[in-house]
Amino acid sequence: MLTRYFPILDWGRRYDGDAFGSDLMAAVIVTIMLIPQSLAYALLAGLPPVVGLYASILPLVAYAVFGTSRTLAVGPVAVVSLMTASAAGAVAAQGTPEYLTAAITLAALSGVMLTVLGLLRLGFLANLLSHPVISGFITASGLLIATSQLKHILGVKAGGDNWPEMLGSLFGSIGDTNPYTLAIGVVAIGFLFWVRKGAKPALMKLGLKPRVADMVAKAGPVAAVVATILLVVAMNLADRGVKLVGAVPQGLPPFALPSLHPSLIAQLWVPALLISIIGFVESVSVAQTLAAKRRQRIAPDQELVGLGTANIASAVSGGYPVTGGFARSVVNFDAGAQTPAAGAYTAVGIALASLFLTPLLFFLPIATLAATIIVAVLSLVDLKTPRQLWTYSKGDFAAHIATIVVTLLEGVEIGVIVGVLVGLLLYLWKASRPHAAIVGRVPETQHFRNVDRHKVLTVPHVLSIRIDENLSYLNARWLEEYVLERVAERPELRHVILMCSAVNAIDASALESLEAINHRLADGGIRLHLSEVKGPVMDRLERSNLLHDLSGKVFLSQERAFSECALDDGSEAPATDADWARGMI
Amino acid sequence: MLTRYFPILDWGRRYDGDAFGSDLMAAVIVTIMLIPQSLAYALLAGLPPVVGLYASILPLVAYAVFGTSRTLAVGPVAVVSLMTASAAGAVAAQGTPEYLTAAITLAALSGVMLTVLGLLRLGFLANLLSHPVISGFITASGLLIATSQLKHILGVKAGGDNWPEMLGSLFGSIGDTNPYTLAIGVVAIGFLFWVRKGAKPALMKLGLKPRVADMVAKAGPVAAVVATILLVVAMNLADRGVKLVGAVPQGLPPFALPSLHPSLIAQLWVPALLISIIGFVESVSVAQTLAAKRRQRIAPDQELVGLGTANIASAVSGGYPVTGGFARSVVNFDAGAQTPAAGAYTAVGIALASLFLTPLLFFLPIATLAATIIVAVLSLVDLKTPRQLWTYSKGDFAAHIATIVVTLLEGVEIGVIVGVLVGLLLYLWKASRPHAAIVGRVPETQHFRNVDRHKVLTVPHVLSIRIDENLSYLNARWLEEYVLERVAERPELRHVILMCSAVNAIDASALESLEAINHRLADGGIRLHLSEVKGPVMDRLERSNLLHDLSGKVFLSQERAFSECALDDGSEAPATDADWARGMI
Repeated sequence: MLTRYFPILDWGRRYDGDAFGSDLMAAVIVTIMLIPQSLAYALLAGLPPVVGLYASILPLVAYAVFGTSRTLAVGPVAVVSLMTASAAGAVAAQGTPEYLTAAITLAALSGVMLTVLGLLRLGFLANLLSHPVISGFITASGLLIATSQLKHILGVKAGGDNWPEMLGSLFGSIGDTNPYTLAIGVVAIGFLFWVRKGAKPALMKLGLKPRVADMVAKAGPVAAVVATILLVVAMNLADRGVKLVGAVPQGLPPFALPSLHPSLIAQLWVPALLISIIGFVESVSVAQTLAAKRRQRIAPDQELVGLGTANIASAVSGGYPVTGGFARSVVNFDAGAQTPAAGAYTAVGIALASLFLTPLLFFLPIATLAATIIVAVLSLVDLKTPRQLWTYSKGDFAAHIATIVVTLLEGVEIGVIVGVLVGLLLYLWKASRPHAAIVGRVPETQHFRNVDRHKVLTVPHVLSIRIDENLSYLNARWLEEYVLERVAERPELRHVILMCSAVNAIDASALESLEAINHRLADGGIRLHLSEVKGPVMDRLERSNLLHDLSGKVFLSQERAFSECALDDGSEAPATDADWARGMI
Repeated sequence: MLTRYFPILDWGRRYDGDAFGSDLMAAVIVTIMLIPQSLAYALLAGLPPVVGLYASILPLVAYAVFGTSRTLAVGPVAVVSLMTASAAGAVAAQGTPEYLTAAITLAALSGVMLTVLGLLRLGFLANLLSHPVISGFITASGLLIATSQLKHILGVKAGGDNWPEMLGSLFGSIGDTNPYTLAIGVVAIGFLFWVRKGAKPALMKLGLKPRVADMVAKAGPVAAVVATILLVVAMNLADRGVKLVGAVPQGLPPFALPSLHPSLIAQLWVPALLISIIGFVESVSVAQTLAAKRRQRIAPDQELVGLGTANIASAVSGGYPVTGGFARSVVNFDAGAQTPAAGAYTAVGIALASLFLTPLLFFLPIATLAATIIVAVLSLVDLKTPRQLWTYSKGDFAAHIATIVVTLLEGVEIGVIVGVLVGLLLYLWKASRPHAAIVGRVPETQHFRNVDRHKVLTVPHVLSIRIDENLSYLNARWLEEYVLERVAERPELRHVILMCSAVNAIDASALESLEAINHRLADGGIRLHLSEVKGPVMDRLERSNLLHDLSGKVFLSQERAFSECALDDGSEAPATDADWARGMI
């Protein structure tokens, strides 16, 4: 029981020297990768770079205690940073203390929300984000993030939460472009793209083993950071207007309970909820993918608690919202991390960096960080999915495109909300119009098939309807309309049989509709029968009045129901073969 | 095509003298019933009584042209009047011109919304109101309405939109009770209750035919109106503080386009939407019940247009939101109305009443109208449903009770919204955890059943899972977790078969999950197979990459899939009967 809420008690007991070695090695590699990333993502979130470092220390320790994935690497990520910028920017101006307070409050709210959702086992709410909506949101966020960084590459001032605002603001200030900044930015982007695609083969040609070549290539952003710092110092580019990171406070994060103003909470709870859900969905899918590779399991509800405590830890140590990052987790996994302790060691690495390395970052050009972000996020833009969705399902395609378009034009918050609503609306629309078929008997068998697709036997005074869906309030009204319309078309009807072989559940609204159908048919002199009702559904119907009020019977098999009703054609004489032949359609 | 949007072109062409006679007779009876009702409901909505008459003229004509029910009687109804009072009261004080403007704006907005929903065929949105939510809302509204009228019975001033406010306000002013008003109110309530239950048997004892006795009993409220007017005049009760209706403007409704201020629209669109949906749901269920009795059909999407135009007609003629009323429609039906023309004739009757009868209403005590409302709405309170729901389904019970409690404590708008959300949440929760079973072969048959319920054959290296639900984004994550957890429990597995006989649809998110499951199982050396995939689902899967990437095969029958996988146990020797016996659990 205790290990369910403190997974560390499970893996911690079996921790040994082997695991320590693997975890330490992975931690060193992730630390090297995380330092420029955390600075860059803080910049993207509109925060001082040091906040990115703060968000990469305590949260990792909290996740190591409460998280269930062995290899997930928690910290600042691109999409959540963009959402933080959008939410905090709505309540304060970038660079003000209020802006930082808003970011910390977002982490605190998101942490509390995630933890509560986890303790209440409400992780299923994340299901509301369908795959087409998430991938559309990620694509659009990638484009927004890349666009938001162009100002740092050009060395101009610009703003905006969506494409029209960003592009308008950018074109307005394009005349102020700083050529030195632009040169650094463009070269850094080119270098980082090459590192991503071409560095590994090149290093292998130089004789490095594939694994080592891969690890060295991962250090590409660090190389870009070092190179551009040296360039700035050597050429004294600070005097030529190249914007630098400047003084970064040295030392460990400040520990303080976030001051939660009610008015701030009222303004930020919606974006905090969206940040929580988007962060959780991204993180869980990464964690599941990696866990499956080693046949491990994660517990999604406990993952909520893990990410929740990580965000609370971020809030009390001057950080901003964090979640499990895809690229970083894959590196952690590939580098051989065995347990969440690797995350804790990474935290020590980042803490050492913020104690000793920050003075070295003074001359780092902001354009280098922007280049890091642009190269990282353009891989988020996914052009294959829309084509696949178009082929597979027009509804899913519509939800995908709606999410992309609205996110680009209106910003991340409205984008997610519209995506979820469009997805839900399409789902409800489909659920409210389920499939059903009028069936008849396949000659010389006991099988019943759709009259529109097969040559089957029917008789004019019996209507057999197979319902291919659970009956719920979403389709209860459809059921009434469908049955009564079919009945209105056939004045000679005496029996209606509902074949329930595909019905796994009937809720109270659908029960009400069945009762209404029963009474209305009875008013018209038609008996209603049910056939092939599943066991659990029957158990439940026995607790209602339907079976008592039913004008007809409940049959175990459709064959039995059909035979019995076919005989009762209202005439005195028993049915003959000729009757059957007449009824064949 | 034209008759779809103008149903009058359909029934109008066949209109004859017989239908005219029946419709006229029904119209006379409904008019007598509608006069006190429309005055009372306007009072409930916080509007001058004459507005109730205005809302009972033009809307009936509009519905006669555009509506599809032959017998629905449109006009002011109790629940919608209460919702109007709540919404208009939030933007202006009762008795002010702004309050009336708000009510007219609600009718206009509601009319436009209903018409647009109808033209876009979005009637399915009304499905979001499940039966337990609607019945809970109606019960709570009945209690709120009855409580809101107590002040008129006591003759005191009071207000409030929910029980705590109403009861607090009422107890605060109970000392000002006017004994004459109270006497009129209590006697009127007693008389009207007796009319409802005991008048028909009593009249039949006097020798009247049942049908005639019924019709006379329906005129009970008119008798109460006439008797109390005479009493007030005879005893000069106006001087004793009994509140009267007073001067009602004489004449036809004023025709004017409603002035729609953007700020008012921004404040009222949410309540207008709720009024539209509640009104539509109530109206459609009455219309369907009555139509089924004569084997007629209504067209729900065109009903939206009918009710929409009725509300627009109400807005341009000084009225407030209207919909199809239950009691009145039943009277119309029982009185023999054949076509919607009966509604138009009723409109003429009400128009005549507002031209000539309004001076007679000067001395009508408001307590009489309040008594009419109280007796009418207490029949809305339904105490049987909660008990039935508790027995049938705890989830539906929870949605029902939540709707009642929130409506009583927080008012009608929050009540409906919370009811819809609770219902949707429970639905999504259930949809995200569908039923699935591990199945094995029933010995000596080709049937596969749940291993937990039946004695069936399985083999250790084959896992057969039957999924009893359509696969969608709501359960895609569940599917991954369910399959991978079952697999993690069985290290000897070589084959997983998903039996898809109950799967009617697979959306893009579920497809993604199936692909993820396929890849993750393949990583672990396990092949994934599908069996009994339905035709339409297969057609769609063929447009995706899943079948190409699938590590296993697609089998037409589960029997075939199981036999073939069972033979491939990793050993060289073919399976023997002993292997089968070992696998039996």
